[in-house]
Amino acid sequence: MRAWMLPANATGFDQLRLRELEQPRPGPGEVLVRLRAWSLNYRDLMVAAGKYMGGGLQADAIPLSDGAGEIAGVGAGVADLKEGDRVQTSFFPHWTDGAPVTHVALGDGRAPGVLAEYVVLPATGVVPMAPSLSFAEAACLPCAGVTAWNALYEGPRALLPGMRVLVLGTGGVSTLTLAIAKAGGCEVFATSSQDAKLAKMRNWGADRTVNYRTTPEWGAWAKELGGVDKVVEVGGAGTAEQSMAALRTHGELAFIGVLEPEGGPNPRGLMMSAATMRGIFVGSTAMARRLNAAVEVNGIRPMIGRSFAFTQAPDAYAHAAGPDSFGKTVIELG
Amino acid sequence: MRAWMLPANATGFDQLRLRELEQPRPGPGEVLVRLRAWSLNYRDLMVAAGKYMGGGLQADAIPLSDGAGEIAGVGAGVADLKEGDRVQTSFFPHWTDGAPVTHVALGDGRAPGVLAEYVVLPATGVVPMAPSLSFAEAACLPCAGVTAWNALYEGPRALLPGMRVLVLGTGGVSTLTLAIAKAGGCEVFATSSQDAKLAKMRNWGADRTVNYRTTPEWGAWAKELGGVDKVVEVGGAGTAEQSMAALRTHGELAFIGVLEPEGGPNPRGLMMSAATMRGIFVGSTAMARRLNAAVEVNGIRPMIGRSFAFTQAPDAYAHAAGPDSFGKTVIELG
Amino acid sequence: MRAWMLPANATGFDQLRLRELEQPRPGPGEVLVRLRAWSLNYRDLMVAAGKYMGGGLQADAIPLSDGAGEIAGVGAGVADLKEGDRVQTSFFPHWTDGAPVTHVALGDGRAPGVLAEYVVLPATGVVPMAPSLSFAEAACLPCAGVTAWNALYEGPRALLPGMRVLVLGTGGVSTLTLAIAKAGGCEVFATSSQDAKLAKMRNWGADRTVNYRTTPEWGAWAKELGGVDKVVEVGGAGTAEQSMAALRTHGELAFIGVLEPEGGPNPRGLMMSAATMRGIFVGSTAMARRLNAAVEVNGIRPMIGRSFAFTQAPDAYAHAAGPDSFGKTVIELG
Amino acid sequence: MRAWMLPANATGFDQLRLRELEQPRPGPGEVLVRLRAWSLNYRDLMVAAGKYMGGGLQADAIPLSDGAGEIAGVGAGVADLKEGDRVQTSFFPHWTDGAPVTHVALGDGRAPGVLAEYVVLPATGVVPMAPSLSFAEAACLPCAGVTAWNALYEGPRALLPGMRVLVLGTGGVSTLTLAIAKAGGCEVFATSSQDAKLAKMRNWGADRTVNYRTTPEWGAWAKELGGVDKVVEVGGAGTAEQSMAALRTHGELAFIGVLEPEGGPNPRGLMMSAATMRGIFVGSTAMARRLNAAVEVNGIRPMIGRSFAFTQAPDAYAHAAGPDSFGKTVIELG
Repeated sequence: MRAWMLPANATGFDQLRLRELEQPRPGPGEVLVRLRAWSLNYRDLMVAAGKYMGGGLQADAIPLSDGAGEIAGVGAGVADLKEGDRVQTSFFPHWTDGAPVTHVALGDGRAPGVLAEYVVLPATGVVPMAPSLSFAEAACLPCAGVTAWNALYEGPRALLPGMRVLVLGTGGVSTLTLAIAKAGGCEVFATSSQDAKLAKMRNWGADRTVNYRTTPEWGAWAKELGGVDKVVEVGGAGTAEQSMAALRTHGELAFIGVLEPEGGPNPRGLMMSAATMRGIFVGSTAMARRLNAAVEVNGIRPMIGRSFAFTQAPDAYAHAAGPDSFGKTVIELG
Repeated sequence: MRAWMLPANATGFDQLRLRELEQPRPGPGEVLVRLRAWSLNYRDLMVAAGKYMGGGLQADAIPLSDGAGEIAGVGAGVADLKEGDRVQTSFFPHWTDGAPVTHVALGDGRAPGVLAEYVVLPATGVVPMAPSLSFAEAACLPCAGVTAWNALYEGPRALLPGMRVLVLGTGGVSTLTLAIAKAGGCEVFATSSQDAKLAKMRNWGADRTVNYRTTPEWGAWAKELGGVDKVVEVGGAGTAEQSMAALRTHGELAFIGVLEPEGGPNPRGLMMSAATMRGIFVGSTAMARRLNAAVEVNGIRPMIGRSFAFTQAPDAYAHAAGPDSFGKTVIELG
Repeated sequence: MRAWMLPANATGFDQLRLRELEQPRPGPGEVLVRLRAWSLNYRDLMVAAGKYMGGGLQADAIPLSDGAGEIAGVGAGVADLKEGDRVQTSFFPHWTDGAPVTHVALGDGRAPGVLAEYVVLPATGVVPMAPSLSFAEAACLPCAGVTAWNALYEGPRALLPGMRVLVLGTGGVSTLTLAIAKAGGCEVFATSSQDAKLAKMRNWGADRTVNYRTTPEWGAWAKELGGVDKVVEVGGAGTAEQSMAALRTHGELAFIGVLEPEGGPNPRGLMMSAATMRGIFVGSTAMARRLNAAVEVNGIRPMIGRSFAFTQAPDAYAHAAGPDSFGKTVIELG
Repeated sequence: MRAWMLPANATGFDQLRLRELEQPRPGPGEVLVRLRAWSLNYRDLMVAAGKYMGGGLQADAIPLSDGAGEIAGVGAGVADLKEGDRVQTSFFPHWTDGAPVTHVALGDGRAPGVLAEYVVLPATGVVPMAPSLSFAEAACLPCAGVTAWNALYEGPRALLPGMRVLVLGTGGVSTLTLAIAKAGGCEVFATSSQDAKLAKMRNWGADRTVNYRTTPEWGAWAKELGGVDKVVEVGGAGTAEQSMAALRTHGELAFIGVLEPEGGPNPRGLMMSAATMRGIFVGSTAMARRLNAAVEVNGIRPMIGRSFAFTQAPDAYAHAAGPDSFGKTVIELG
């Protein structure tokens, strides 16, 4: 089978190489997935750059966590999946429900990566696709979709129809948050530094938008409009002070925040509004199933900014890293 | 001012009489509301029949809990409301937030009733209308709307987009539940004994319907389709066994159930699915505000089956009590 | 190894026979447990009588779900347990966390039973004992202890110090509920038909007790004292009406209720107090771990009414079924 | 009546003056409280220094939020309180239940202060004392006690028996947290810079203690011991990074944090443990009632470090501001 690989100590996605590897076989409790589509996340750029959690790759590795395809084989003891089932991968393949189980994360260089024609995964690590989605659309959900869902709906306080959500920027998590929150009957505010991207967000359903270049105090802007019940904070420490300022009473700052390793907001802003900040790290397969039910019932379609052929994977990385990226960047088998 | 009144020991709505009364004045902490529209609930029929909680009226009384109109005067110390504000009444005017405060309930014969041109209420007992609603539409919400909202969204476990709700019959609570749950991204199943009413429910967005006459085991019917996460159980003890059978894991039977005073379901059905049953008794003004936000953001319109002029109030009661009632029956000043 | 077995279609525990069987071996993902102590639950009497869920045993079977002992061997791929670890069994060995996984339940005739010197279980199906407990004490927890914990602490609304709990009778679940709730800073009320047992409960920490023979309206009795926040309802449909009457605002009736298959309470009692009823069916290994932490931190000791030698297992059943049973009946290897 | 007053623009508690004022009278919905004891909070030192939220006093003012005494008169319409009732004050006298109502806060210079022989408060702003407490003990609870209770028990995720709590320092909030958490069956870890104070905390029930001078990485210290489920973070931005490091999966950092206005922790620490940070600002009277129930049921006694006579109020301030302060500093009428 063909697989894209990064070399040990890779420093960028330009070092991706397409190789021919032996097709893996599923052991007991495992499944073989024939992949048809993949999607990129910001984290994949960091893995390729050798800057993801704890540094560079220690060995050659197949990258990527997010893919969708068909079951092509099942190991002993797998009862609930069969050949031909359409499935998507799960970022943390052993986290099925309840408290986080995060010691295995696909595509980080230690666990299996999915940017290949086939991958073997534990049967717990795949989830049936929402029937109405294409492989490319389903491939957008394992990391960004589940993160958005977790941020919106898996916290201890419910997000209700009529409540308000603020998304930062126009990447995969933010466009999926927009689509899911609108399906749930919420108002959505969005920020960007580009007016053209804000216009796209409005076309996709955003109720109000703000350019954070021209309105650097966008936290106060949101608060003047009555505040928001949820901020899906993908910016990190650098934007959290503004996000906190935007919160209403009992609001939640869902913190994903991979961008800024240093410094942070003074949490005093949480006191006056009895607000909370919650750390979000993707989610469980139970969350993925709940997301997929919401996708199916509401006809949610992930926003795919651009799609690339499997053989052009490095171009997909380049696009995702560039200024024109919007929503999800996907790769398809073609 | 004109007001409809029931005599002490009334036994039916045919005893309603239109009278001329002195217009009331707001004291400290109170507001005067000039009513423009009203709606009927099943409970109002019971009050008129002398069969509501603890029996007949002990004195002549203005009936009804649900109305909408304009603030026509404010008493001392009322800061957040002013003349001209469009408001709806609150079933429990002293229950603002937190734990239930149910000792005063509008229109029960002891507390003020609203079927009059004016009513004085505590300032805590009115809620700003959703701006996009007419008076008639807003008058549908105080009892049936808040009940539906409480049942769906104020329980301890969140109802999420993609989850499934079952409503029983096609009255005010059930049609409002349908509208709110669809706005929240849920699937809705509905029951009725009349196929024509089921067709109306499908037109209003219901995903699946069942005739409980021809399918008396509708609990099993729902379970075969995968079960539901919520039943808004307005039938009471007589239908709860079927409702319980319909529940999925962690589902909730929201029990409103005024219809059957005797007997009840064996709760063993709750054990296998770790399900809960929760008693619903309308709700607080905080809930009404959250409902109104959801109404406004999602363009929810209460289903008004028929509307009557103020002078024809007894006809409205007769319609609400009859077999052709669907959704809410309202009265308008005209 | 020696094991007690019930024959197919057993109708009573007098048909228990001690047999010599081959010692089982752990496969991949499994552990071998050398049992040292066991405890009986009401359900075990029903299994022996051929009356448990769906009727009699279809084949000879080793009964019992609850035991404690040492790991005597581990299969391939088991990393977190090793020989010599002191563990207790888990009623539902595949329910680790999150939503219930109840298709396998130890000792029901289809899944393994533990009334033997050794048992092989999935590694997910054992939990480390609280270090301060004896094997006999730890053997009291898998069913009755986890049930009590789930009823008290795993519902959607928190039980807080200073709140009040009502337990029915003086069996395993009720005595464990008493001990756990007192450790959590709650007041506990208890019922029994025997004054001598009520005296024992007071000695064990119960704050108030009532004889339900002489005070059949014990629901009203509790309500006059201010009501309770939780009833751990082991009686079932026959007592639920009284239990419901005892509840305060936002109270919970934790329904375990195996005793009465027919009839049930009218749930209207839940409406006035915004109360809930929740079905309890033992619990997950995550719950067992939380229980064990509470046991260890607070020095909780299960109430063992009487202990029998392994060779006298039928006598233990007879005692558990009789009128003098109090707390847990255990069996020890000796 | 006598009252201690601070002058406009006060810069320190040495400017407190004892004055003779006219005794106030309760209006409609108000009560007159004859105070018997008071307690100091860190916030009172800031008010006296002109450094509390928004700066100095704009007019002469009676300081202090926390007191206990007897009802000495009731205004019109007050039904649930009568002369002689023993009550404590409520920091936010209009926040009764549900979402925060914080626009009126006793003793901040704008709202009434209680360091006087009498004070008039809204009837909603007093709470019956736990019967077993003295006035001095009850006076410890309105700010520090309710804050501790809110931090422990009013968050969205329940704190359970057997869980672990970390308190910082040995002030009023921390000593009350210790007492309440032990009553709730939790383990408590405590920090201080003084070994003598740590010994006192162990005498009061702390399970483990750490000197943060000699162990500046006390977050890692706590994590190595298995981590904690709750940190009651009174230090603020300066200690939050360590507090976050101490958290277990699903743990909560309850942020009270008045000490550090600048800077803050990078919230990435919340991501790996799916943990939350929640802003705590005292609490409602409903919370005070729940606290008092827990106090009464469990015999909780606030830790009073030192007590001063009413005429020596400035000495009480000086002690509270000094290095020997431990637990609560109280003032009694004598």
